[in-house]
Amino acid sequence: MNQPPPEPISPPAAPVRGRELRADARRNRERVVAAAQQLFATEGLGVSLDEVARRAGVGPGTVHRHFPTKEALYLAVSIDQIAQLVAEASTLTATDDPAALFTLLSRMIANGIENILVKSALSAIGFDLRTAAPELAHTLTAHVETLLARARTADLARDDVTPREIMALIAGALHAAAYAGEPSPSHLGAIILDGLRPQVR
Amino acid sequence: MNQPPPEPISPPAAPVRGRELRADARRNRERVVAAAQQLFATEGLGVSLDEVARRAGVGPGTVHRHFPTKEALYLAVSIDQIAQLVAEASTLTATDDPAALFTLLSRMIANGIENILVKSALSAIGFDLRTAAPELAHTLTAHVETLLARARTADLARDDVTPREIMALIAGALHAAAYAGEPSPSHLGAIILDGLRPQVR
Repeated sequence: MNQPPPEPISPPAAPVRGRELRADARRNRERVVAAAQQLFATEGLGVSLDEVARRAGVGPGTVHRHFPTKEALYLAVSIDQIAQLVAEASTLTATDDPAALFTLLSRMIANGIENILVKSALSAIGFDLRTAAPELAHTLTAHVETLLARARTADLARDDVTPREIMALIAGALHAAAYAGEPSPSHLGAIILDGLRPQVR
Repeated sequence: MNQPPPEPISPPAAPVRGRELRADARRNRERVVAAAQQLFATEGLGVSLDEVARRAGVGPGTVHRHFPTKEALYLAVSIDQIAQLVAEASTLTATDDPAALFTLLSRMIANGIENILVKSALSAIGFDLRTAAPELAHTLTAHVETLLARARTADLARDDVTPREIMALIAGALHAAAYAGEPSPSHLGAIILDGLRPQVR
């Protein structure tokens, strides 16, 4: 009980050359994930790992080394997209825009619709953001909570909705868009977001 | 081209005894479907076909004869539920209640939430109401269209939403409810329905 806290464990200092290699590998991985995201969104999930490598400008071995299966690449694309949304949420939270909640939710819906094929494939194999990337999911929900409180103060959001319900509604909006399969499914998202505003009868 | 239309084909008149038997088989099937709906909704999908038979008050052979697999029973339950919704929609269309659209949509959501396990199981094996029961789906959408027009005339519904979008939003509401997994997910449905009302900014 009275033990001193354990010393923080520092990684051993890497030689410069090793560090450069690791940074290089990280950059290659990022290029692969970005290329895969673009190709899946525009060409569909039939794209081969070799095509992803070509688009990313790396050798096929690099892709296969980082992502032994297509599913591993889906997961990386999806988690990368969520990390980007967390970054956008962080930027929005740093402003004092009272409507920032709706900006963030619109971005989440637009991003989800763009990556609907990857998301559907992951959901078919039981992927759930809340278990696969719990910290990102938690951080994103926390930003939604902050922005919801701010929107409420400005009377821009209804009083009786929780951040957890909003996350469920975003999942519902993406499902509605996939169900409709229409060219401009973002209108469905806009209708759902309108339901979050204060309701005047 | 000028041939007379073919004679309508009448089924041969069945002897009274045979007709009674068929009516009896139909009643048994209905009891099995109703019992299965209740058991799946309250006990989950782990319920055995034998338990369904016991609840329905029929022999196990009767259940197995009508429904060789659990999936066949899921499908029958789901289609039966939709047929009931079509009947409710028809009743609502026959009234002149301007808010009947929202009554119907609330019923669709409540019914879908009650049967969410069956719906999820069917959706996991690629079931889609629009292809599995196209006539019921079409009739239900037609009722939504009629009630939407009526609600608009009374300024109770927004102008820029189509019946097809509403069907997608209902699917989205059910997905949101399943995602939230909360005890009273109907609140999510209410929020989505609020988005369908005229929007005042």
